[in-house]
Amino acid sequence: MSVTAAKGFTAAGIAAGIKENGNPDLALVVNNGPRRAAAGVFTSNRVKAAPVLWSEQVLKSGQVSAVVLNSGGANACTGPKGFQDTHATAEKVAEVLGRGAIEVAVCSTGLIGVLLPMDKLLPGVETAAAQLSEHGGEKAAIAIKTTDTVHKTAVVSKDGWTVGGMAKGAGMLAPGLATMLVVLTTDAAVDNDTLDRALRAATKVTFDRVDSDGCMSTNDTVLLLASGAAEVTPEYDEFAEAVRAVCDDLGQQLIRDAEGASKDIKVEVVNAATEDDAVEVGRSIARNNLLKCAIHGEDPNWGRVLSAIGTTKAAFEPDRLNVAINGVWVCKNGGVGEDREKVDMRYREVHIVADLAAGSETATIWTNDLTADYVHENSAYSS
Amino acid sequence: MSVTAAKGFTAAGIAAGIKENGNPDLALVVNNGPRRAAAGVFTSNRVKAAPVLWSEQVLKSGQVSAVVLNSGGANACTGPKGFQDTHATAEKVAEVLGRGAIEVAVCSTGLIGVLLPMDKLLPGVETAAAQLSEHGGEKAAIAIKTTDTVHKTAVVSKDGWTVGGMAKGAGMLAPGLATMLVVLTTDAAVDNDTLDRALRAATKVTFDRVDSDGCMSTNDTVLLLASGAAEVTPEYDEFAEAVRAVCDDLGQQLIRDAEGASKDIKVEVVNAATEDDAVEVGRSIARNNLLKCAIHGEDPNWGRVLSAIGTTKAAFEPDRLNVAINGVWVCKNGGVGEDREKVDMRYREVHIVADLAAGSETATIWTNDLTADYVHENSAYSS
Repeated sequence: MSVTAAKGFTAAGIAAGIKENGNPDLALVVNNGPRRAAAGVFTSNRVKAAPVLWSEQVLKSGQVSAVVLNSGGANACTGPKGFQDTHATAEKVAEVLGRGAIEVAVCSTGLIGVLLPMDKLLPGVETAAAQLSEHGGEKAAIAIKTTDTVHKTAVVSKDGWTVGGMAKGAGMLAPGLATMLVVLTTDAAVDNDTLDRALRAATKVTFDRVDSDGCMSTNDTVLLLASGAAEVTPEYDEFAEAVRAVCDDLGQQLIRDAEGASKDIKVEVVNAATEDDAVEVGRSIARNNLLKCAIHGEDPNWGRVLSAIGTTKAAFEPDRLNVAINGVWVCKNGGVGEDREKVDMRYREVHIVADLAAGSETATIWTNDLTADYVHENSAYSS
Repeated sequence: MSVTAAKGFTAAGIAAGIKENGNPDLALVVNNGPRRAAAGVFTSNRVKAAPVLWSEQVLKSGQVSAVVLNSGGANACTGPKGFQDTHATAEKVAEVLGRGAIEVAVCSTGLIGVLLPMDKLLPGVETAAAQLSEHGGEKAAIAIKTTDTVHKTAVVSKDGWTVGGMAKGAGMLAPGLATMLVVLTTDAAVDNDTLDRALRAATKVTFDRVDSDGCMSTNDTVLLLASGAAEVTPEYDEFAEAVRAVCDDLGQQLIRDAEGASKDIKVEVVNAATEDDAVEVGRSIARNNLLKCAIHGEDPNWGRVLSAIGTTKAAFEPDRLNVAINGVWVCKNGGVGEDREKVDMRYREVHIVADLAAGSETATIWTNDLTADYVHENSAYSS
């Protein structure tokens, strides 16, 4: 399903030999039209990988015919040679498909600071093109995995049209607009402006609110391609909601697969003066290493929540703050609330509610706990 | 030595029974004059513990005769009762010493959200007062430990006058002005304004640039008391330098004792357009969990340094960034530099230089690696 759930798309995923272990590492997604509309959001990290710099230009051309994605190397911090490699990759895809290179978006993921093995990647493009299929979505999703333990796909089908997508990401997950590689496709007949509006609205409340480890990637990319093959133009609100639902589903899958995590933590900030306040407080809580360790230890340590809230500029009075963990209001009016012994933390999902008592706005940030496994996974080898 | 190295001060440290394990948990530092000048800096966390709120008022009175410090409980997020307890503690010290309560600063450290056992703390004040001694500095330093594995003291002696101090802190260490409990004493004959100016200048470049885990405490306090007993008024610059040196020494001791750390990391940002830029970049690097894991694994993963720099607003061009790890310029002009195999990371101290190539300002931030031991220490029990 994945990126080929919507009509008008073919995809493939193969092992080109970029990864030394022989796992799949090259994916190709092709929009066969009739439309080739597209929108994209990219990392706000100022150190941007070559494929991000290239794909930003592709998006400006207004038409995207294909996306080529590789795992096994981020092609970030690789200088002019890295950019040449991205360009050569797009040229190769264009040649094989008989399209223009400026219609080919490129995404890369893996270790920063290493050049890609072009002698393997370019022949891989030919292999992938030969395997393009309307059933290739799953293989494409598998080929973009790095430290992901599972591949991630999501589909929403509506009355005659569909939005589907795939995502990779397990570490270096923090909001920067996008926070991973994601390709979404739809067969709805929608124009670039509609795609852009719906995609930005969706990422703002989904991927932007996923924060595994506070570390922002150099390669984050979310692309939304529309083929128009369904010959249906949905109402904007319905279309935007479908895009949001697919992004939300994929974002949840990213958090559930976060490196080393044993708990998925939903940080819900309520009664904030503004949505920005709610997001700032949610992020501060979600990035607090001490709290993340406490949750790992199934310790409802609400003092660390208050300590994190206190570092923000959000509107609140310390003696009006309330905090609930898994439904128990362990902190009331900035002090001790219900008995912390009542908090049941045996399950994987943990729900923290921070009540700022300063307004009526709300935001939810998803994160996970900090574990020895995360340390091991990120210290035992480069990634 | 510690806080009693300077003439005019007595101190004591005892076990009052606040800690269930019977370890020392109450310290008293008394300024016997002739002057009782003082300055203080406090956490910028907006959720402030009761003793911080109290001591801020004490400092405004312009005279500090004594500081009472307890470990075993932070008295933070404890509501009006917590503030009453702090007040009662100051009153007790005042009664025992025959001074006014408004001249008694109070510091607490330990778990947030728990009331102090006043039935043990108040009798403890009497016991401590009975043991006040010109040789009590070390015992006082021991009594303020929480997860600290060692007690921390430092002394600088100049021509006829001295600055000494003690500190506690091992976790929840991040700049917020001060980042821990610190009491400094001097027998120099200096006034409040001089103390305040010297202390703020010192903390700005020492404690403020220590960032173990990015988590800001609710209880951070740095106090500087002057007795004038040396009857010497040093030049401002010489005095300020002595205060800075003691703060720097104590700050280094805090990082070396950071919870679970196996590496001390010096992040030196050079050639920044402004000092603020240098500090912002240094903090971003120092707080990057992925990099901290890589350093733990002795992996010179400079891509994670660039990724961290890229999240800041500092002036720089990505293709002009250079990064050295332990003297090897592994990243040059934003791309691959010298062979990373040359980097020797066997030793505890790791030195990262980030060259922004954007000016001539510099700043150094100290942090440590992220380890499974840190996760264990902060998940296995509340602290």
